[in-house]
Amino acid sequence: MQANAHPLSAIFNPGGIAVVGASEVPGKAAERRTRSLFQGGYSGDIYLINPKRDRLFDQKAYPSLDKIDGKIDLAMIVIPGRFIPDAVAQAAAKGAKGAVIITAGLGETGPEGKAIEAKIMEVAEETGINIIGPNCSGMFSATGRMNLLGIPGLQKGKLSVLAQSGNIIDSLSHFAHSRGRGFSRIISSGNAIGVRFHDYIDYLASDDDTDVIMLYLESIKFGDEMVKVCRRAVKKKPIIALKVGRSTAGQRASASHTGALAADDAIVEDAFKQAGILRVNNVDEMFDLAECFLDAPVPRGNRVCILSEGGGDNSVAADNAERWGLEVPVLSEERQEQIKTYLLAGMPAHNPIDYGGTAEENPDMIAKCVDLVMQDDSVDSVYITGFFGGFKDIIAEHVGELETKASEDMAAMVKKYQKPLLVHTSFARQDYEAVKALRKGGIPVLESSDRTAQCLSALAHQAANRCKKEAEVKYSPNPGAGKKAKELFAQVWAEGRNNLLEPEAHELLKAYGFVMPPFALAGTKEEALSLAEKMGSYPLAAKIVSPAIIHKSDSGGVLLNLKDAQETAKAFDSILEAALKVADRNQIKGVMLSPMAESGQECIFGMIKDANFGPVLMFGLGGVYVEVLKDVSFGVAPVYDEDVSRMVRSIKGYPLLKGVRGQAAKDVAAVEDLLHRLSALVLDNPEIKEIDLNPVLVHTSGMSIVDARIILDEAKES
Amino acid sequence: MQANAHPLSAIFNPGGIAVVGASEVPGKAAERRTRSLFQGGYSGDIYLINPKRDRLFDQKAYPSLDKIDGKIDLAMIVIPGRFIPDAVAQAAAKGAKGAVIITAGLGETGPEGKAIEAKIMEVAEETGINIIGPNCSGMFSATGRMNLLGIPGLQKGKLSVLAQSGNIIDSLSHFAHSRGRGFSRIISSGNAIGVRFHDYIDYLASDDDTDVIMLYLESIKFGDEMVKVCRRAVKKKPIIALKVGRSTAGQRASASHTGALAADDAIVEDAFKQAGILRVNNVDEMFDLAECFLDAPVPRGNRVCILSEGGGDNSVAADNAERWGLEVPVLSEERQEQIKTYLLAGMPAHNPIDYGGTAEENPDMIAKCVDLVMQDDSVDSVYITGFFGGFKDIIAEHVGELETKASEDMAAMVKKYQKPLLVHTSFARQDYEAVKALRKGGIPVLESSDRTAQCLSALAHQAANRCKKEAEVKYSPNPGAGKKAKELFAQVWAEGRNNLLEPEAHELLKAYGFVMPPFALAGTKEEALSLAEKMGSYPLAAKIVSPAIIHKSDSGGVLLNLKDAQETAKAFDSILEAALKVADRNQIKGVMLSPMAESGQECIFGMIKDANFGPVLMFGLGGVYVEVLKDVSFGVAPVYDEDVSRMVRSIKGYPLLKGVRGQAAKDVAAVEDLLHRLSALVLDNPEIKEIDLNPVLVHTSGMSIVDARIILDEAKES
Repeated sequence: MQANAHPLSAIFNPGGIAVVGASEVPGKAAERRTRSLFQGGYSGDIYLINPKRDRLFDQKAYPSLDKIDGKIDLAMIVIPGRFIPDAVAQAAAKGAKGAVIITAGLGETGPEGKAIEAKIMEVAEETGINIIGPNCSGMFSATGRMNLLGIPGLQKGKLSVLAQSGNIIDSLSHFAHSRGRGFSRIISSGNAIGVRFHDYIDYLASDDDTDVIMLYLESIKFGDEMVKVCRRAVKKKPIIALKVGRSTAGQRASASHTGALAADDAIVEDAFKQAGILRVNNVDEMFDLAECFLDAPVPRGNRVCILSEGGGDNSVAADNAERWGLEVPVLSEERQEQIKTYLLAGMPAHNPIDYGGTAEENPDMIAKCVDLVMQDDSVDSVYITGFFGGFKDIIAEHVGELETKASEDMAAMVKKYQKPLLVHTSFARQDYEAVKALRKGGIPVLESSDRTAQCLSALAHQAANRCKKEAEVKYSPNPGAGKKAKELFAQVWAEGRNNLLEPEAHELLKAYGFVMPPFALAGTKEEALSLAEKMGSYPLAAKIVSPAIIHKSDSGGVLLNLKDAQETAKAFDSILEAALKVADRNQIKGVMLSPMAESGQECIFGMIKDANFGPVLMFGLGGVYVEVLKDVSFGVAPVYDEDVSRMVRSIKGYPLLKGVRGQAAKDVAAVEDLLHRLSALVLDNPEIKEIDLNPVLVHTSGMSIVDARIILDEAKES
Repeated sequence: MQANAHPLSAIFNPGGIAVVGASEVPGKAAERRTRSLFQGGYSGDIYLINPKRDRLFDQKAYPSLDKIDGKIDLAMIVIPGRFIPDAVAQAAAKGAKGAVIITAGLGETGPEGKAIEAKIMEVAEETGINIIGPNCSGMFSATGRMNLLGIPGLQKGKLSVLAQSGNIIDSLSHFAHSRGRGFSRIISSGNAIGVRFHDYIDYLASDDDTDVIMLYLESIKFGDEMVKVCRRAVKKKPIIALKVGRSTAGQRASASHTGALAADDAIVEDAFKQAGILRVNNVDEMFDLAECFLDAPVPRGNRVCILSEGGGDNSVAADNAERWGLEVPVLSEERQEQIKTYLLAGMPAHNPIDYGGTAEENPDMIAKCVDLVMQDDSVDSVYITGFFGGFKDIIAEHVGELETKASEDMAAMVKKYQKPLLVHTSFARQDYEAVKALRKGGIPVLESSDRTAQCLSALAHQAANRCKKEAEVKYSPNPGAGKKAKELFAQVWAEGRNNLLEPEAHELLKAYGFVMPPFALAGTKEEALSLAEKMGSYPLAAKIVSPAIIHKSDSGGVLLNLKDAQETAKAFDSILEAALKVADRNQIKGVMLSPMAESGQECIFGMIKDANFGPVLMFGLGGVYVEVLKDVSFGVAPVYDEDVSRMVRSIKGYPLLKGVRGQAAKDVAAVEDLLHRLSALVLDNPEIKEIDLNPVLVHTSGMSIVDARIILDEAKES
């Protein structure tokens, strides 16, 4: 093992394994897994533990772990919960770096199980042993041929799987079996009380035997850590994730399965984008994409050239490509002329290219066209659609050899130009030589045109991942501001509150560099008038300031557009009168006066502390855009330049910021800067539970934060 | 043939066929088609026409059609364009009811080809012969085993295809071949100069041998007729359509293929919804859905129950179901208790149902669960996902027999309850007895979970189609209003205009029952003041009325919120002054005064005459909703209750009409009524090119049409 090996590396290369709770009863969890361990050809020593048996699987069985004579690196534990903490301690004593706990019915079922899990973790912390599971279905590692999954016939390969469901591991194994693919690691994470989901991802990212990481998730814990780990990992290798629970019924099915609540799917969706994770909806998609990553080179971008022998297939493919976010550029006139020399007179070569009528009779022409297209700088990848490989059936038997030759030629081009070529053909399942030659040469062959486009899109996605910049947060922690924040929070809690009054929110935000509009707090009407005069910038807005009044507008606590002293005086009286209906006099801190903001595009900036992802920023245009159209974007803190750029540009209303109908563009840079500041603020102050800057009026230059609402966690009992 | 047979029926059951341009040169279009006609086992007489040969295909060849001794019902024509009109005339003289013209290079290439097509149609009109094509790839009819497509091995079945691309017919034939399915009719429509695309659909709707209609479209002509025909047809049988050209590249590919322009895809999308057409994006989807319609019963609704042996697969399936618009209802407590008797303790039965742990060892329990679910009134269809059929591999060999028994039991349930059951399984391609028993029993078995959900959704879509009401237009043609409209248009054209002045638009709309706000047209300031006084309802709006000024606001021609006589006088002067900068005095008809409308939800109602669909209505919320968010819906005239209901409810901003944030609901009935009236207006007056009622302010009761712009076609040269 290398000196700088990953901490989890040892458990995937164990020199000796103990099976605690070994059994020979057919179909039992322990039996299936012990059998797959033996049958898989595991290279190390196997110790079987069962107090009731002397021999199992034709070898000596031990009454308990402390009775074995050798040392182990890993223990697989399949015994009732109450015995597990001791077994883990014994395993650690025998040198084990990890314990794979298959036993279910622990933390996911209630407090009793949770107590056992706590005990297990006590042992783990004392001994340093890694806990895998419990409630997991095991693991597989090609190194050492360790198969603890009970699934027969797993082969070695470059795919790795990390899953919260054994069922899905079964499906993926089935796909691998039928397509002749193998795995590097398969991990069933179970309740993940010890080694966390993102720890495994971090390991797989570092594992040289893993080229593609496949994730199956029902719930997300430590989502912020996962985003961090993944955004680093995807620069080197693709991560494909199937996260269920988009729908209410899906949440129902998944909650019953793992006992965890599903995160708000809109946040998951954006967090995955932020992390560079490729999201899929189904296992077959996941496997098709993974295979494609194994075989095809990663392109430079998303511009695809489409070729077929038929206009119909070309049209379908072009629609598929654009639906999957690919570009189908028009080739240069010069290139078109070169290509046309291989086509029937009058056939188009702009892209899509229709080589129908001649090329399928002599597939060499197809390879010639592909060569011209591959050498073109405006093309990143190539998409052949139709009947390739089957022209020997459709046209004539002898065409088969020409097809195979063309396949080999195209495979050489993929290597030469390092651009992916994907082939959709009705003959993908036929065992024809030409199809085999394509696959052998690193050219994925798919039966579905839609899936072909999806795979090309996934490759382009990985191209973008590779270009991800090593980013730094824009604003570092600010000790001075932090100190002020703590003082402020202490004061708020001391008063038995957890919502900041608006002047307090202003103070906090200003400390973190937010540009806040001026304001003055008036306790009496006279004070209000003198402050207003001092401010000297009618029209004014007046708002009640009281810990007892959260929804200021609803209770008559806000009056706008006060034009002069007379209106200001009237407003003060009216606001106070309204406030006294819902609050005591001593709960009223005064009336806050501030100049009316100039008009601008209404926006909302928010932060919520998500149970799964920690602090999550939200951005959207205000009012109905958020409430009716749900046109918002999310970013898990910390956010970097690429994240705020995505957040601002991915909302549908973005054109309103960019300027429509002849209106000047709004200050997008200021919007982005605010998101950076918000990220710094919330990371510096984990006590903040929720922030709403709403509305914020974004001007052509700068912005006005018209209202700021900040809520803290409840004060901790001391 | 029946007395009331469809006019096209004869050409699908011909008693004799002539091949004009028959050839024996391998690979030639005529040769391939003649060969498929002979090899397909055509039941009638075949006459081969070729002036240069005495014998072809081992039988006598004729120099021309008029030399044959018998009568024919159909001629297939594969000769150069200039000879076709004569050949068609000769075919008609010999009794042919139809001519299938394979020859390409006619109308799609330019004026010369179009001239030939015109001549062909002259002959057709004289003789009554039906023209199929030109530029088509032929047709197939299972009745009489007539295969004019040149595709070998087509079998008889209940699927029918109507396509604008031969390439796609090849794909569908390939699918049919590999899945053991057959066709009733296959039609390649080509340029469709004689028999139109919708005529074929009308025939297929009437054809008892057709159970499912599959369409492939690149361009749409006579879209309004197609909507009419399809909305009638889908009550009896499903129509699945693959319409390409959603993307710009797709349009490019398709335009080069047929020489026709693609319709705006948003209109196509809504027109298909209106017609009850099921839209797909790929050929494999189309075939999967079609197969499902052949085998499974149509359910009563969209409520699906999901069952599996694994939580992972259940979660994936539930997400798929909801993404495809299906409901996954929670079963009643009572039903859950019944189901739980078959599950492991603690396993959920709410739906999705997880029978993992026991049922896969004894699949009889799966059938028992399905029985309980099928008899439940809250369930319309059943979706099994996972590994069914392969438990014999996963669990034990003897389970195979139990699986087959369960398959047979479930097939009986499908028949008994007439509810569809679809099975997604990793073993869909394995030739296992249990899988075969499912398929034999009318239970579709699919390899993809996503596609299974899509198929269930398609079945639910057909359930809705069956419930489509025989609708009538709400407002019939109005002879009085029509007369007034013609007079108005004549006057507009007489003045060399084609845009109606706003008072004229008011007049026209009022004639058709639209409630228009009162207005008065003032020629002088004095007149303005006296009219305003008479109106007695300040504040007023004032707008210029001039044929020279279309964009009134941009040129200072609109002033709002005039509070009194003084402001009105000032406004009159200002508007007139501004108008005189862009228009001559004699082009100014005056200033239109009307009371300011009360506030309401801003909406836009529009009509454009679409090149493909004729008059198309549009509805949306005004301003940015239309311009930035493209949140609009379309309806092809005439519209019925279900159409206007869809138009209003399908926009994303609909909650704003229904009332959000405590606001009262707006008058949705009035919105719907306006769409009905708009439909009646534009059908009664095909001279109207474009209508914009924008903005229309919709109140809690009633609405105010604040601005109406109506544009006519150019006056016809007389």
